[in-house]
Amino acid sequence: MVIDKLYERVEKTGHVCLGLDTDFDYIPLNFADNFSSKGEAIFEFNKKIIDATRDIVACYKVQIAYYEALGVEGMIAFRNTLKYIRQNRNIVISDVKRGDIAKTAEMYARAHFEGDFETDFVTINAYMGMDTLEPFFPYIKEHGKGLFALIRTSNRGAPDIQNFLGKDGEKLYTHMGRKIQDMGSHFRGQCGYSSIGGVVGCTHIEEGIELRKELGSTFFLIPGYGAQGGGAKEVAVYLKSGNGGIVNSSRGILLAYKKQNRSEEFEICAREETERMREDILKIVKG
Amino acid sequence: MVIDKLYERVEKTGHVCLGLDTDFDYIPLNFADNFSSKGEAIFEFNKKIIDATRDIVACYKVQIAYYEALGVEGMIAFRNTLKYIRQNRNIVISDVKRGDIAKTAEMYARAHFEGDFETDFVTINAYMGMDTLEPFFPYIKEHGKGLFALIRTSNRGAPDIQNFLGKDGEKLYTHMGRKIQDMGSHFRGQCGYSSIGGVVGCTHIEEGIELRKELGSTFFLIPGYGAQGGGAKEVAVYLKSGNGGIVNSSRGILLAYKKQNRSEEFEICAREETERMREDILKIVKG
Repeated sequence: MVIDKLYERVEKTGHVCLGLDTDFDYIPLNFADNFSSKGEAIFEFNKKIIDATRDIVACYKVQIAYYEALGVEGMIAFRNTLKYIRQNRNIVISDVKRGDIAKTAEMYARAHFEGDFETDFVTINAYMGMDTLEPFFPYIKEHGKGLFALIRTSNRGAPDIQNFLGKDGEKLYTHMGRKIQDMGSHFRGQCGYSSIGGVVGCTHIEEGIELRKELGSTFFLIPGYGAQGGGAKEVAVYLKSGNGGIVNSSRGILLAYKKQNRSEEFEICAREETERMREDILKIVKG
Repeated sequence: MVIDKLYERVEKTGHVCLGLDTDFDYIPLNFADNFSSKGEAIFEFNKKIIDATRDIVACYKVQIAYYEALGVEGMIAFRNTLKYIRQNRNIVISDVKRGDIAKTAEMYARAHFEGDFETDFVTINAYMGMDTLEPFFPYIKEHGKGLFALIRTSNRGAPDIQNFLGKDGEKLYTHMGRKIQDMGSHFRGQCGYSSIGGVVGCTHIEEGIELRKELGSTFFLIPGYGAQGGGAKEVAVYLKSGNGGIVNSSRGILLAYKKQNRSEEFEICAREETERMREDILKIVKG
């Protein structure tokens, strides 16, 4: 089970999930100038960041939207980035938030668990129903793959749908979380967590406590650290005895060089910021 | 407003939305053999289908999952298919069901409303909240683009989440529908419908009647005709005085040649099936 690998990795190297949401505009000009296309510059920037951080992160997360926005050239950079991370035996999550059914869902499973865009985990949006997940099951069982399904996100508009109040006083996100945890119970690893994890925002402390209690065997992908407002304290409520989740930061790490005006050393700044975040979280969760 | 174009097109040519969910396995071998790659074969197959049907369809819908599954080569076929449809001044929906927030949502808007993958409409999953839609608004206002947001789908697992019962007896999909219609009210065309439409499955007659009544200015994209079990009667309840929606069929049209063993004339079979479906729906809605 891939979740055991991720769990061990968190034990060894901490909770940082480094988000490669690489907008071309994030890349220092003097570096980008060396390359003939935006796609190439993005891939080479990612490589530098990966080389500088691979021993201190739990995993990487690649947000496909940033690559899709550049068309075919961007998709080549996406493919190359995933290959590079996996070659180096790091774990990677493709943040694609796909969600469809029947044969279309099979196609998405094939797209992201085989071929050019092969990854270790994908993020999933299960609004269409639990059959969204089914075509991914053979890959979880037989090919060491995993999912993170959206449960509760931390954006401004999240309550619009996710907090829809059920007749028994239960909110939709709790209902979604329970469905995901039920599905996940068939794919539990030795670590006790399932290879079907959940995405939960890190800005709601009470909700975090409730979700962690309710979803005992669900491993969490927690975005919202840094740039989106959450800190180590918010994160800690989602973790159990120091494990059980990873915490994503993207811009906070990729753009760390800007705060210090050190564009020549962007990858060193990224490493320092990753270290800082890693210690920040470890200090609170390990007490 | 792009919705006026689509509305007029339905008035003139009927309700068929031809789904180019082109799996390589759908292509007759004797045709596929002429091309050196799967991606090329898919694009050339699509071209034949488009050329044979463009005067009798309301629009095309391209399901991106089938292209993503072939990696970079598939994304090239996706780009080329969209370009070919738009060159011919037909309307195209990219069925991507994306849904994300903030800068990531901006990137998705850029990905599908500019550059390589430029399209007329995209499908959207708003589980994350109404801010999912916001980055698309400037494109709707200023660049003649449109959306179809998931409301109620027709798959087996749809009730898992979409039928979650609210404290006032309202189901989640009604709540979602109302939110989408409210958003859409800012983008209404002269035809009375909004450039933010909704995806509603065609297999639930009672739900169809209720949704059509509740969401008076929402134009519907209705999948589920043919292969997925719905017929013209089910479709009719989603339409108002003969307009207000388009009906998708993919496999039923693309694979029409198989039933008749006419693989040499797959595009003629596709045209005949499109004609049949078009008349089938028109007969019921026009009475």
